[in-house]
Amino acid sequence: MVVLRFRIRLFAWLSLLAGAGGFMAGAAIAADPLPSWNAGAARSAILEFVDRVTQEGDHDFVPREERIAVFDNDGTLWSEQPLYFQATFAIDRVKALAREHPEWKEKQPYKAVLEGDTQVAFSRSEAALAMLVMATHSGVTTEELEASVKEWLATAKHPRFQRPYTDLVFQPMLEVLNLFREHGFKTYIVSGGGIEFMRQWAPRSYGIPPEQIVGSSLKLKYELRDGKPVLRQLPEVEFLDDGAGKPIAIQKFIGRRPIAAFGNSDGDFEMLEWTTTGAGRRFGLVVHHTDAEREWAYDRNSSVGRLDKVLDDGPKRGWTMVDMQRDWKVIYPFQK
Amino acid sequence: MVVLRFRIRLFAWLSLLAGAGGFMAGAAIAADPLPSWNAGAARSAILEFVDRVTQEGDHDFVPREERIAVFDNDGTLWSEQPLYFQATFAIDRVKALAREHPEWKEKQPYKAVLEGDTQVAFSRSEAALAMLVMATHSGVTTEELEASVKEWLATAKHPRFQRPYTDLVFQPMLEVLNLFREHGFKTYIVSGGGIEFMRQWAPRSYGIPPEQIVGSSLKLKYELRDGKPVLRQLPEVEFLDDGAGKPIAIQKFIGRRPIAAFGNSDGDFEMLEWTTTGAGRRFGLVVHHTDAEREWAYDRNSSVGRLDKVLDDGPKRGWTMVDMQRDWKVIYPFQK
Repeated sequence: MVVLRFRIRLFAWLSLLAGAGGFMAGAAIAADPLPSWNAGAARSAILEFVDRVTQEGDHDFVPREERIAVFDNDGTLWSEQPLYFQATFAIDRVKALAREHPEWKEKQPYKAVLEGDTQVAFSRSEAALAMLVMATHSGVTTEELEASVKEWLATAKHPRFQRPYTDLVFQPMLEVLNLFREHGFKTYIVSGGGIEFMRQWAPRSYGIPPEQIVGSSLKLKYELRDGKPVLRQLPEVEFLDDGAGKPIAIQKFIGRRPIAAFGNSDGDFEMLEWTTTGAGRRFGLVVHHTDAEREWAYDRNSSVGRLDKVLDDGPKRGWTMVDMQRDWKVIYPFQK
Repeated sequence: MVVLRFRIRLFAWLSLLAGAGGFMAGAAIAADPLPSWNAGAARSAILEFVDRVTQEGDHDFVPREERIAVFDNDGTLWSEQPLYFQATFAIDRVKALAREHPEWKEKQPYKAVLEGDTQVAFSRSEAALAMLVMATHSGVTTEELEASVKEWLATAKHPRFQRPYTDLVFQPMLEVLNLFREHGFKTYIVSGGGIEFMRQWAPRSYGIPPEQIVGSSLKLKYELRDGKPVLRQLPEVEFLDDGAGKPIAIQKFIGRRPIAAFGNSDGDFEMLEWTTTGAGRRFGLVVHHTDAEREWAYDRNSSVGRLDKVLDDGPKRGWTMVDMQRDWKVIYPFQK
């Protein structure tokens, strides 16, 4: 295994003062940046890539400002079953707003949602989901949306784990985010999820600031309310950050071609392709959900996070395929 | 005048070792972060703002991650006369591409441009300018556009100063950018100029990385050429980053409300309003072009960088109005 040069941490120094035995223990902790990853090809590939592009003088060395890593969110950094979590937020908003919209009782997909039949609501089409998100995310100002997302996050519980949704981030991926940042990478989210939705919790959950979170968006309108300016979300999609939209968003928001990309579904194909076909050493990683017991197992036939083309093409293109069941010691931070 | 706490620099320490006299000289150099600004209200307002929001424990203290400062580009960070420099690039491109477009000889505004009559070309309407930019910036891939911008910058000379356009950045504003960054601010460009155009030179000229440059954009298309992915610029405006578009772009790209904004024209009104009406201490600054001798003098009646509403409203709203002739010791770095 390659040797990684880690910043020597304070506790290692303290251990050194306490004697050589203590130092060894300290160094051992500091030296494993991926404790939730089992030994194997995926873990080695991550460590080797980070090592190679950050070794000054190495053929693959990449200057610090060019170290851009992009991460899909749903299914890559947190779970996405039984429904994208933002869709659950939209459903809960429909229920909360139903009194103001009596017409929803007779209109699909709202009717199905209000009758508790989300299977019906979403089996119809992706458009139904888009319509729900639009209806529940528009009309309000960005500040009002922020407040409703935060309230939902503080109270809603995931039906299977009976925990807040933000507990369902992937511990092994938190370690990857930290590893990359410790080696001078700027980490970005580039997700099909709503940009305003993600920015309310992702900074704290992942250590990624709002300005490094890229997502789908509705059009905004600048207007005055009682003489004070607000930004109001319009019921019109501005940008869908999925598929070919991802490299386009990367160019627009970042203006540099990333050297590492992480995804889990066919919606990440173009982002992975754009990243890994650039000049110099590149890295692509795909999380394959194979663990029905600890998380979920799904790929080609899933309506959420469908992984079909990328499952075939990924290995041929040299992308690192993560088998969640085999490669991850724990899934969530609360299982540590 | 307020006292600014500067990072003590190496040379000051070295001077200290060399004796107290040397230390005073070293400290004096380090202590003037705005050497190209004359003493006066504008200079004091800048220094006081930076001091107040960065003093831990002060009522106006702002945590480092919230220190966002946004800068218009044309007329705020570099000159914009006799024509926006990007328009000159577009004109030069029309001439360079004319052979491939014989139809332009008979079609306005191309005809006027090819006959050397840019007054005619642009007096018609802003739409004429937009059309030129579109025709000369689209069809190509982002990499091809990058190459043509870089080639133009390396060869084109400003008609008045006979120097590369990138020489015409404002020395006093470079000092402001550095002052803010030294105090933990993230500095952004939020400009009506084209995002792909600015990113080719602004990082080196201003020390602002591509991912902190926000501008107007054309739609992009992701496609394969000989099996390799490219992003092609389409002849369709995606976003006009001017007027109310600026706070909208700020929300989308940055996701935080800035605490300082710098502009020079009515197109910056909403950005200044959005920034300065937020809670807590805020800062707005307007560059007024008053120096016909060293630069240009223009405001209410200029077709380029028109400053009318903001000239009236700025002082009422507490924005710092910079009188270029009075406040700036030098305009350009080559005059230092």
